[in-house]
Amino acid sequence: MTGLIVTGPPKASLADVDVLATLGVATVHEAMGRKGSLGCGLRPIQLGAAIGGTAVTALCWPGDNLMIHAAVEQCGPGDVLVVSTTSPSRDGLFGELFATALRHRGVRGLVINAGVRDVRALRDMGFPVWSAAVSAQGTVKATAGSVNVPLVIEGELVRPGDAVLADDDGVVCVPRDQVSATVSAAKSRAEKEAASREAFEAGELGLDRYGLRQTLTTLGVEYLSFEEYEKRSST
Amino acid sequence: MTGLIVTGPPKASLADVDVLATLGVATVHEAMGRKGSLGCGLRPIQLGAAIGGTAVTALCWPGDNLMIHAAVEQCGPGDVLVVSTTSPSRDGLFGELFATALRHRGVRGLVINAGVRDVRALRDMGFPVWSAAVSAQGTVKATAGSVNVPLVIEGELVRPGDAVLADDDGVVCVPRDQVSATVSAAKSRAEKEAASREAFEAGELGLDRYGLRQTLTTLGVEYLSFEEYEKRSST
Amino acid sequence: MTGLIVTGPPKASLADVDVLATLGVATVHEAMGRKGSLGCGLRPIQLGAAIGGTAVTALCWPGDNLMIHAAVEQCGPGDVLVVSTTSPSRDGLFGELFATALRHRGVRGLVINAGVRDVRALRDMGFPVWSAAVSAQGTVKATAGSVNVPLVIEGELVRPGDAVLADDDGVVCVPRDQVSATVSAAKSRAEKEAASREAFEAGELGLDRYGLRQTLTTLGVEYLSFEEYEKRSST
Amino acid sequence: MTGLIVTGPPKASLADVDVLATLGVATVHEAMGRKGSLGCGLRPIQLGAAIGGTAVTALCWPGDNLMIHAAVEQCGPGDVLVVSTTSPSRDGLFGELFATALRHRGVRGLVINAGVRDVRALRDMGFPVWSAAVSAQGTVKATAGSVNVPLVIEGELVRPGDAVLADDDGVVCVPRDQVSATVSAAKSRAEKEAASREAFEAGELGLDRYGLRQTLTTLGVEYLSFEEYEKRSST
Amino acid sequence: MTGLIVTGPPKASLADVDVLATLGVATVHEAMGRKGSLGCGLRPIQLGAAIGGTAVTALCWPGDNLMIHAAVEQCGPGDVLVVSTTSPSRDGLFGELFATALRHRGVRGLVINAGVRDVRALRDMGFPVWSAAVSAQGTVKATAGSVNVPLVIEGELVRPGDAVLADDDGVVCVPRDQVSATVSAAKSRAEKEAASREAFEAGELGLDRYGLRQTLTTLGVEYLSFEEYEKRSST
Amino acid sequence: MTGLIVTGPPKASLADVDVLATLGVATVHEAMGRKGSLGCGLRPIQLGAAIGGTAVTALCWPGDNLMIHAAVEQCGPGDVLVVSTTSPSRDGLFGELFATALRHRGVRGLVINAGVRDVRALRDMGFPVWSAAVSAQGTVKATAGSVNVPLVIEGELVRPGDAVLADDDGVVCVPRDQVSATVSAAKSRAEKEAASREAFEAGELGLDRYGLRQTLTTLGVEYLSFEEYEKRSST
Repeated sequence: MTGLIVTGPPKASLADVDVLATLGVATVHEAMGRKGSLGCGLRPIQLGAAIGGTAVTALCWPGDNLMIHAAVEQCGPGDVLVVSTTSPSRDGLFGELFATALRHRGVRGLVINAGVRDVRALRDMGFPVWSAAVSAQGTVKATAGSVNVPLVIEGELVRPGDAVLADDDGVVCVPRDQVSATVSAAKSRAEKEAASREAFEAGELGLDRYGLRQTLTTLGVEYLSFEEYEKRSST
Repeated sequence: MTGLIVTGPPKASLADVDVLATLGVATVHEAMGRKGSLGCGLRPIQLGAAIGGTAVTALCWPGDNLMIHAAVEQCGPGDVLVVSTTSPSRDGLFGELFATALRHRGVRGLVINAGVRDVRALRDMGFPVWSAAVSAQGTVKATAGSVNVPLVIEGELVRPGDAVLADDDGVVCVPRDQVSATVSAAKSRAEKEAASREAFEAGELGLDRYGLRQTLTTLGVEYLSFEEYEKRSST
Repeated sequence: MTGLIVTGPPKASLADVDVLATLGVATVHEAMGRKGSLGCGLRPIQLGAAIGGTAVTALCWPGDNLMIHAAVEQCGPGDVLVVSTTSPSRDGLFGELFATALRHRGVRGLVINAGVRDVRALRDMGFPVWSAAVSAQGTVKATAGSVNVPLVIEGELVRPGDAVLADDDGVVCVPRDQVSATVSAAKSRAEKEAASREAFEAGELGLDRYGLRQTLTTLGVEYLSFEEYEKRSST
Repeated sequence: MTGLIVTGPPKASLADVDVLATLGVATVHEAMGRKGSLGCGLRPIQLGAAIGGTAVTALCWPGDNLMIHAAVEQCGPGDVLVVSTTSPSRDGLFGELFATALRHRGVRGLVINAGVRDVRALRDMGFPVWSAAVSAQGTVKATAGSVNVPLVIEGELVRPGDAVLADDDGVVCVPRDQVSATVSAAKSRAEKEAASREAFEAGELGLDRYGLRQTLTTLGVEYLSFEEYEKRSST
Repeated sequence: MTGLIVTGPPKASLADVDVLATLGVATVHEAMGRKGSLGCGLRPIQLGAAIGGTAVTALCWPGDNLMIHAAVEQCGPGDVLVVSTTSPSRDGLFGELFATALRHRGVRGLVINAGVRDVRALRDMGFPVWSAAVSAQGTVKATAGSVNVPLVIEGELVRPGDAVLADDDGVVCVPRDQVSATVSAAKSRAEKEAASREAFEAGELGLDRYGLRQTLTTLGVEYLSFEEYEKRSST
Repeated sequence: MTGLIVTGPPKASLADVDVLATLGVATVHEAMGRKGSLGCGLRPIQLGAAIGGTAVTALCWPGDNLMIHAAVEQCGPGDVLVVSTTSPSRDGLFGELFATALRHRGVRGLVINAGVRDVRALRDMGFPVWSAAVSAQGTVKATAGSVNVPLVIEGELVRPGDAVLADDDGVVCVPRDQVSATVSAAKSRAEKEAASREAFEAGELGLDRYGLRQTLTTLGVEYLSFEEYEKRSST
């Protein structure tokens, strides 16, 4: 296998990405029709960070971080570096030195479907990271891979220039050409959620607010007092 | 499959439950004869919270949170909502809006053998949650399930009205009819632990305190100096 | 199966161990030629702790902590207790009372390839722990095992007296007879890392600093503008 | 923890159990309303075996098979031995010698939520086994457990005397008091399946046979030619 | 979420697909530059089957097989049905009745990133299946999904009309527009493998045949007699 | 990291190894005091094969099989090749061509803590393999590793020249210097098992044969009729 380093991909509008970042991963995921989540396997190494940026992608061989070095050069202000491997790997492909180089270039954070290390230093320098593992296990720089080709993480495609959002709920990817439509959809969803929050604080039930009593009836779900239930179970 | 919503189950005494909550999950689990632990897969999304309450149970289809809506209506002050799915699911079935509705009803927290989302908001509002995953992945409201039927999580039965306790060590369930006996057993275990703590602080060994030297001898465990061990290994 | 309790193993120099602890797990692991990591499965129950010490090892039967009691007696100032089981086990083999006894003896922390409990109390008393799980599930004291025999955790050998270092990146073991050589290697690696950090802060690229442009060329990795890439993909 | 050995539990009718066994695990599971499956983790060690019997249950400590010895004495003709452990264990708790003893007593097979060994001998002697693992790892006989108490495997309760059915699709448990109702339901389901099979062989579609075209419409699922789809994607 | 059913996608040439199928999954994967493998999680339910066909894809909600019904109608001679779910699911989404309908339409087999059931019947009728699990757990038909949209399985994209090949080594997907180039590459790789096989049968070493002695030297790998190694280890 | 290729290690007596192979993995594991099992993760790709041989070890980088090429040259008649990786890897590191080369040299089989491919060809040529996975995913030949250094698989040490035995129950390793003692122990265990088999066929119970009734009494296990149990549960 050899590889490609693709330069100058088109990118989602940073202004739009910034709006999406304030709305949060869960809301944006819903606004896209429940798509784009990179799964529950990518967890933040810090609490409370919430970022958005445009993806620069790196595809590495397991246990090998050569292509992250190549990817750094393709990164600029507003980007988020997204790394995956050709086979599952939990080794520590990324650490403090990479973060130092990326911060110099204005990169907003890292999403890596593999391991990271130096996590205390990463937290101390305030460089946000979402990863599949924390591992001290080091890597070689021996095998070709690619930069800025489409990646797949947990069943979702991430292409260079796509919007990548990450917070305590995980990571979501919005395809470049859907970013502006998603901004509108996510805003209107956030408004609906605000209204529901107010209603729930006042004691309304989701059963009534979302018309779910009818759904339960249609599905044949039955209400039963505990006494009736006990009686029915014992016969 | 259709479902049942059972109303008005008998509940463990909240006064007893509150005593158990102060004693902690590990102590209560020991006091029950090492039973009732819901396993190491359910982890808190916050640090330091410790709750106890009476279980309201919801059994959902994977990727579907319809029955949580139905369960909310069955919840009241002192309850803990306990959710599981008919097949393993790590999707985010529960979020901030549900917590808002539950808090209005006096519910003390959530135990869910599936995923949650909006975890930052949940932490900020102080609604304690123990879950199998954090996931932005949303769900539908399309399939029947049940409320207040017995659930099984990691090999332990949770029935509506049972006492459910949760802290940084995980979650334990005490069957409704064993709660008052468990209060006495847990109190006396906590006293024994306090005495042992004092003895260990003073330098006593568990080998002596629990009579384990005899156990080692009976089992044929042998003491050997490092030199003898090396010699024996090399022949 | 019966067991052995080996007494008085030779130990790595604590002065050397203390130097390694300040250099950190990832740096020491690299300095050893990328060896000794106990894997990404052992995670700290606290944030920010970093310890080093000499290993006292305990090999237990799954669900049984008898041999930890025997191991406590073999522990002294500067030691780290390292526990594993003969088959994988996530039960809570270790808790606050053991920590109390170990602290009395000057032990610096615990590394356990199984579960722990009382984690809130352990955090409150400042006893650092790295474990494979947190679990309230208690254990018996019924089956023989060994103390101060070589253990294997995630493919790495830990012998009594070896240096064990742990921080937020995980745990690394340095064989007793390699400790002093590792001190020199780790120091010189830390110096190189400091120089690289400075260079990266000034904007140098790893591609240039480590001569990786040549590697990419040798491997046949090709640079391509996005437009060329698109064109090539569509044919 | 100490234990109980419960003797003489009531049992499901073997005549009914034998009928269920001929209908197969998947059909019986559907007939119960999609309940009772012991999950995809229990796999047969042989191909093509299909058994049914009444459960004798054994609850063991991980790595300890003492209670299987106690359970053997409680087993008789038509029984299936069902074994689980208090914490997950993949050790080889069961082997050829146990199977020899069970066959002498007329036992029909083993379902074990742990490991087995001697699998070649077990296949050769025709003793059918469904297990969570195959493992040469041996066990001790040191810790108390229970016989003929309710067990939970993968979220389902198995009580002594319940009907247990196992084939290449896995294992299903039918509660003793639902066996006769399940026989009728399963028979009528098998008839429906036979009719559907015939219809499908003749080319009918499930969309038509089950009225699912309406479901798709209600859910808003849209048909689109590939050309339209391509056009829509590119804008 | 709602869904799409895309009709009439272009398909890879069946003649080419048939050639690839005879060359085998591993060879085709290598010929594509080590791409396209759907991972080690998809295993055959039978031994020795080897198929190739053009993909019809179905994306289902976990625990819901509604969209497989919709997909059947889109299937024709030479197709392979490829199914995945929006979140991981191991339920039995597919069984004998579906296979009956698909065989009627000339479909060559099933690749499913979820569970199947009726596996004995599937083997008996000779309908080949590769799946992530075997599970008796049944499903509902309640939630929208899509047919003939791109799917991702274990990090690889499968688009409708792509060539899908499966044998005892697993499953590989060849993008529609690369099928004919892959035929040539795979044929020439198969010839090289045949030559290597002959050489290895005659005793040649891979070290010599592939010029790897030089690689070892360049990497600094050192040859050492066991005596020298022992001596070096002991100092 | 660079590597070592150690030549000419001393080997266990093949005559002894052949005796152990006839006694089987489970019996030998027991005879060693329940040690040496390489865990339930290594499964045979064929049914019914049982081999024994002397270990030649290869330690590879994940996704890289360079060192298997180096190991082939170190293999001779009676050897078993044992492969592991520095980090977990399920890629297909080994296939038919390697088996062809090994068979030419008189090697008896492969044990690999990673993936294999060409499994149908391997079965057809009768080359026995135990592996952690089957995967079509190919590998590079780019990174240094070692041959004939000690490996650890699932917590057990395998050194070059050790006896490695494998059958349908998995794989066990007997340290070179314990082989002859293990032959005697395993033979006498096999005799005891034969006597027990005969006794169990005649209806004797393990409870009586192994004196376990006393153990149950000592542990406080209580016998209870089902009626008494029901009564006790309901109060």
